[in-house]
Amino acid sequence: MTVTTESSRRNGVDTATLFATLDAIKAQNEIAKFTFRASNTWVSGTHSRSTAGGFYGAMQEMQHKNETVLEFDHPEVLVGTDVGPTPVEYLLHAIAACLTSGIANIAAARGIELTKVTSTVEGPIDLLGILGLSDGSVRNGYEQIQVKFCVEGNADDETLRGIVEQSRRRSAVYDVLTNPTPVVIDVVTG
Amino acid sequence: MTVTTESSRRNGVDTATLFATLDAIKAQNEIAKFTFRASNTWVSGTHSRSTAGGFYGAMQEMQHKNETVLEFDHPEVLVGTDVGPTPVEYLLHAIAACLTSGIANIAAARGIELTKVTSTVEGPIDLLGILGLSDGSVRNGYEQIQVKFCVEGNADDETLRGIVEQSRRRSAVYDVLTNPTPVVIDVVTG
Repeated sequence: MTVTTESSRRNGVDTATLFATLDAIKAQNEIAKFTFRASNTWVSGTHSRSTAGGFYGAMQEMQHKNETVLEFDHPEVLVGTDVGPTPVEYLLHAIAACLTSGIANIAAARGIELTKVTSTVEGPIDLLGILGLSDGSVRNGYEQIQVKFCVEGNADDETLRGIVEQSRRRSAVYDVLTNPTPVVIDVVTG
Repeated sequence: MTVTTESSRRNGVDTATLFATLDAIKAQNEIAKFTFRASNTWVSGTHSRSTAGGFYGAMQEMQHKNETVLEFDHPEVLVGTDVGPTPVEYLLHAIAACLTSGIANIAAARGIELTKVTSTVEGPIDLLGILGLSDGSVRNGYEQIQVKFCVEGNADDETLRGIVEQSRRRSAVYDVLTNPTPVVIDVVTG
């Protein structure tokens, strides 16, 4: 019998803490109830600025280490000032990042060392929808979203593909994009 | 008959260019076919970095003025290093910004001067889903997304609410969040 001693840190994931967190949540499900938040302020035209700092989770108000500040705009070809990416582009970044963090966590939990995870995302969108120029056959959003992953690590092709598939099955962003999520809009005017 | 001369710029939106763009797209629908893109690289643990610069639109390859660089991570309570917001938080920023840019454009087109558009967004999410600790009754994504707008301008309550409602009806992000969008994932391993 060979006993190997290894750090609980793999792929930058502290697996001991990861498993302890899962155990804590199993014992008290309330810990898993989170609420994330964002605030947005219109600047001019299609340019707005979005911020966030706090969220609710683990049964308490929490703060991120740093405040988030994001710029949003439309490119000049869409009559914006191109101060930042369009809102729909952030969705592409979000799906890539969500699947990637899942891949790192799942690989770590399965004892696989990753050496590279890169992805590219494309989202074709026909703007006849949002511009109101369609007869109703063109949707407002992306026709589809295409994600291409390149994953390298100390495991065979099937194992690495299985990690990506498990990440997809457990991805919050994948769920929100592929399934309906209710969006409730309240308005106060002045 | 009173003739008033006014600038075509309203709410920071060049309405003359906006209407000319609509006319150009009506005449040649192909102009409206866009493809947005993102690239993501895993850094360590749940930390990844996402970039974008180019997109396809108006029948040609185009570049944003600036390259986008976004950091993604999980907070420490979720065994991350909190170098950036979580991927799901970006969805909240995106819906606020998308509706806001629509509000500014639609108000400008309708001749309404806005003085303020702010919004806050909340997304409750039960992490039992993504952690695989649910019996299947808890989804991976947000239970719902709640957006609260404060809109002020030189119009009555009904008119301002109508602008928000029209923005919702034409929002690409609202569509992607509330309706299913196919996400196709290809994997290459090494």
